[in-house]
Amino acid sequence: MSIPRSARHQPPRTNDPEGMRRKVLDAAYGLFQSRGYHATSIQDLMTETNISGGALHHHFPTKKSLALAVFKERVAPLVRETWIDPVQSAASLGRGIQSVFEGIIAGAEARRKISGCPLNNLALELSLVDRDFRAAADEIFQQWQTALGDRVRMTRGGRLLTKPARGHVAAFIVASYSGAMTLAKTEQSANPLRATAQALKSWLQARHLDG
Amino acid sequence: MSIPRSARHQPPRTNDPEGMRRKVLDAAYGLFQSRGYHATSIQDLMTETNISGGALHHHFPTKKSLALAVFKERVAPLVRETWIDPVQSAASLGRGIQSVFEGIIAGAEARRKISGCPLNNLALELSLVDRDFRAAADEIFQQWQTALGDRVRMTRGGRLLTKPARGHVAAFIVASYSGAMTLAKTEQSANPLRATAQALKSWLQARHLDG
Repeated sequence: MSIPRSARHQPPRTNDPEGMRRKVLDAAYGLFQSRGYHATSIQDLMTETNISGGALHHHFPTKKSLALAVFKERVAPLVRETWIDPVQSAASLGRGIQSVFEGIIAGAEARRKISGCPLNNLALELSLVDRDFRAAADEIFQQWQTALGDRVRMTRGGRLLTKPARGHVAAFIVASYSGAMTLAKTEQSANPLRATAQALKSWLQARHLDG
Repeated sequence: MSIPRSARHQPPRTNDPEGMRRKVLDAAYGLFQSRGYHATSIQDLMTETNISGGALHHHFPTKKSLALAVFKERVAPLVRETWIDPVQSAASLGRGIQSVFEGIIAGAEARRKISGCPLNNLALELSLVDRDFRAAADEIFQQWQTALGDRVRMTRGGRLLTKPARGHVAAFIVASYSGAMTLAKTEQSANPLRATAQALKSWLQARHLDG
């Protein structure tokens, strides 16, 4: 997955504390994705960013504070840009979900590498390690599901569902996408994403939730 | 998730190299589950098992060899016992899948803690780190999907499907379960598993794949 559009930046100027902070966040986001949180050391971040330990510590006093900022300022915007905004603005929920999958499949094949879903990667590695990490991951999963549940209410079948039932639909969509990304990452193939996109489509259609 | 039945053991006797090996595997499996591979040190394993570094090294010369043994001797049997065997012996595919979910939900609620799916946890943490880890995780995912695909062929709707189409069905089942476990672990609630079990049931029924 790429860095969220909102986070792309110009190279930092000298005496550009905000630029330096963004550079550290980008590097941490990238390394947490490719290696994981525990396998990334502060030394790795210093090497990657060419920023001193002191400057790094100034922005992020602990590795934990850096990870929480990655959740909030990198992972949450990415879920918003990749999933929430496109589904909200799509002509139909079914069409919106299909184009999200298509975009992710096309991106994975262009890069010839599947790094998995940043939220899933960090959520699985960190949810049992620290309650603040778990809360940060859970908050993003909840925003994602809430947005989908709201969109479900606008469909022909969704209007007839209770709020908890719409929540179940949203949970199923997020779960099947998340698991498909895990399979795709392990297999290094977009096939599980294709299988899941197709199956979700028929499931939504049968329940009149695609409108 | 608990340790696979086939791996439960008596406390090791003195001069019981096999017992010692099992003890190390059990401890590594548990720590990799609760903390992750990278966050578990050899020192942690020595403390947990009360086995010396030398003895540990005798059985597993590297941490990597230990992780590969955990995949093969702990994670693979668990997937077989939790998923493959029950689905193969169930009266119907739909019934088999529902009882797997019910068993996992009941277990999670009894333990009041959801550690996630051991295969998913390790696959996401390790797939990009080392190609042997990725191959080990992929092999288990493939066995799981092959067994499900074979079972799909025995259903009314599945008989009419091509082998790749049956593979898609299997991938969707594994993906939605896997993602539901990620959500359940992050939320520390069995609700995503319930939502997914219910949705999968209706999807299988509509395609006559539940028989």
